[in-house]
Amino acid sequence: MAELITLTTDFGTQDSYVAEMKGVLLSEGPASLRIVDLSHELPPFDVANTAHFVRATLPRFPAGTVHVVVVDPGVGSSRRPLAAEVGGQLVVGPDNGVFAYVFDRNTIVHAIDVERLARPISATFHGRDVFAPVAARLSRGVPLAHIGPRIDSYQHLPFPMVEIQASTLTGRIIRIDRYGNLITNIPRSTLVGFLAGAPPGSVEVQVAERVVRGVLDHYAEAKLGDLLAVIGSAELLEVAVREGNAAHKLGAQIGASVRLSLRAPP
Amino acid sequence: MAELITLTTDFGTQDSYVAEMKGVLLSEGPASLRIVDLSHELPPFDVANTAHFVRATLPRFPAGTVHVVVVDPGVGSSRRPLAAEVGGQLVVGPDNGVFAYVFDRNTIVHAIDVERLARPISATFHGRDVFAPVAARLSRGVPLAHIGPRIDSYQHLPFPMVEIQASTLTGRIIRIDRYGNLITNIPRSTLVGFLAGAPPGSVEVQVAERVVRGVLDHYAEAKLGDLLAVIGSAELLEVAVREGNAAHKLGAQIGASVRLSLRAPP
Amino acid sequence: MAELITLTTDFGTQDSYVAEMKGVLLSEGPASLRIVDLSHELPPFDVANTAHFVRATLPRFPAGTVHVVVVDPGVGSSRRPLAAEVGGQLVVGPDNGVFAYVFDRNTIVHAIDVERLARPISATFHGRDVFAPVAARLSRGVPLAHIGPRIDSYQHLPFPMVEIQASTLTGRIIRIDRYGNLITNIPRSTLVGFLAGAPPGSVEVQVAERVVRGVLDHYAEAKLGDLLAVIGSAELLEVAVREGNAAHKLGAQIGASVRLSLRAPP
Repeated sequence: MAELITLTTDFGTQDSYVAEMKGVLLSEGPASLRIVDLSHELPPFDVANTAHFVRATLPRFPAGTVHVVVVDPGVGSSRRPLAAEVGGQLVVGPDNGVFAYVFDRNTIVHAIDVERLARPISATFHGRDVFAPVAARLSRGVPLAHIGPRIDSYQHLPFPMVEIQASTLTGRIIRIDRYGNLITNIPRSTLVGFLAGAPPGSVEVQVAERVVRGVLDHYAEAKLGDLLAVIGSAELLEVAVREGNAAHKLGAQIGASVRLSLRAPP
Repeated sequence: MAELITLTTDFGTQDSYVAEMKGVLLSEGPASLRIVDLSHELPPFDVANTAHFVRATLPRFPAGTVHVVVVDPGVGSSRRPLAAEVGGQLVVGPDNGVFAYVFDRNTIVHAIDVERLARPISATFHGRDVFAPVAARLSRGVPLAHIGPRIDSYQHLPFPMVEIQASTLTGRIIRIDRYGNLITNIPRSTLVGFLAGAPPGSVEVQVAERVVRGVLDHYAEAKLGDLLAVIGSAELLEVAVREGNAAHKLGAQIGASVRLSLRAPP
Repeated sequence: MAELITLTTDFGTQDSYVAEMKGVLLSEGPASLRIVDLSHELPPFDVANTAHFVRATLPRFPAGTVHVVVVDPGVGSSRRPLAAEVGGQLVVGPDNGVFAYVFDRNTIVHAIDVERLARPISATFHGRDVFAPVAARLSRGVPLAHIGPRIDSYQHLPFPMVEIQASTLTGRIIRIDRYGNLITNIPRSTLVGFLAGAPPGSVEVQVAERVVRGVLDHYAEAKLGDLLAVIGSAELLEVAVREGNAAHKLGAQIGASVRLSLRAPP
């Protein structure tokens, strides 16, 4: 059934780590297994960034997909390995917050019992020795209950919140993409509420000491090279430069604040 | 039938964009769909380079393959989204010239009617919201006519032409590959015509103020570290350094001229 | 049967080379072929590094898998193209040492007879014109004997040996991974023999003028940012920094010596 396994890691592909995991998956998974690479280029050890990545991708996949996520600075420590069911899909990875933005009250979470794998487990590479074997089993239809005991608690990671004070809304940059677009933690719904009743163009977006007026519907409404604010594909406010790189232009970094103010339109 | 979908983008894989597209393809395509990554590392926004990439790769694939190409600086502007049939294969992407070197008189081109997709379409990510859903439909056997109206005109991109004057042929560098090989716009057939009757070794290749004598059959005919000219795998003249990097050695860039002259052999 | 083909190259994916190979494999291989990317980011022209990569990955794959390995500085020279059977799996690539650490006395090695491919073969791209077509044939069940004549000799590559003198063991760094971990040529078994009877913590590991005491079982036994020595996932001694980059911290390079000495514990 579940013959799709996705891989999300910070391993890069210059080393043999991803290839070794694929060998284990194909040796131990169902004969018709298809492996789908999501990313091996996540920033090393960055759990919060991985949680955002998982949040953006997971809901797009068909029911029954098994997702292996290995960004795991604590490998070999006492952090637990997890397997869980989220909205009909299965996830496997470390209990360090990478799943924090997709787990909710209805998620069924199990701790992986590594003894049941009955294999040698290296100190440094649980992707190959724990997570891949468990994903292969789940993909073959082994139920979560056979993987290890159900648990009630797991690592949380607060989603960075927006502050609203009178006519000012303060968020921050949570991701910077390959094109230098600055992705904030300000959801479309929050923005819509904040702007309710205000005339179009009456909002100013301030980031890294620069000000952009208005939130556009499309990149193409700005002039080439101009700064702009737009609701991006993750339904979050983004600051971008049309066919350019906002991160370079502004010298902006993850965590920097983004302030929206209502002004009388000019 | 068409259970193969290839992906060619400038998205990189550090962000979630490629992964989101894969989720859509697997959710909406046929159950046996196999996704084939061609590249996610194309130079951002470079339409001409993408057109060369598509020209080199498309003819290698089996009939019925669906190719999604997303290098799309004009996303969100009025540039049209296209789906087309080229020699028994299907392509999906923006109407900005990325298909210019594979489209010909016999190509059947349709504009994608985004209304028929009946889904929310973000301002900034047509790869996920337009091109992937259309590719999934085509892969399930939906005919082009259901995707949108057939059209007669689309964006062209002139293939950079070679100039021939008496005993001089002038071309230029159109691509530089990972190894620093300088790939020109001079096809083998043009070169053969230009050299017809001339004794072997009578041609001089001038690039970035350096001169190479003769066109070799193999890298290995040159000494380690020497500059050489050879007909490369795209059937185009290349300037290379044996087991070295010609781009670094010459400081050469895309667009630089490459001049061939006939001389009496030494 | 053998519907899995893996790809290991130094091509990168910015150029069209990998994509062209995939087109040939899918056009000429079995209809149900699944292509598995192992790496396209191996360091260019580095045969020894590739041999380590193949050694780490090959044994993980199921019987019948076909592995194409193209790191080929001698393309177009007289180096032979090979196809071979190794423990029930098949490999295809250049005879330059990339398979040296998996070939043994029982390996059946054939030279590829390019005439039998009956196709044009470019001077510079045997990955597409020789290795992919042969892999496609093997994957369709064509026996090795049809690919070319069996041969007795092929390129060897000495595995870098460890020196033991009284209470000192000297190895060296053979790979540096993405995280900056320094992977040595010192196998667990050699280390266990060397330490036999010595009290725990009595070994000193010297690398790049720094000394680490003891060999840990897990990264997590060290403090954040501390240097440590551990048996890594390849069953080789590694020098690492917990959640840090040992290569940067030590300025260490491939080939540098790593010396173990027995001392009275402190």
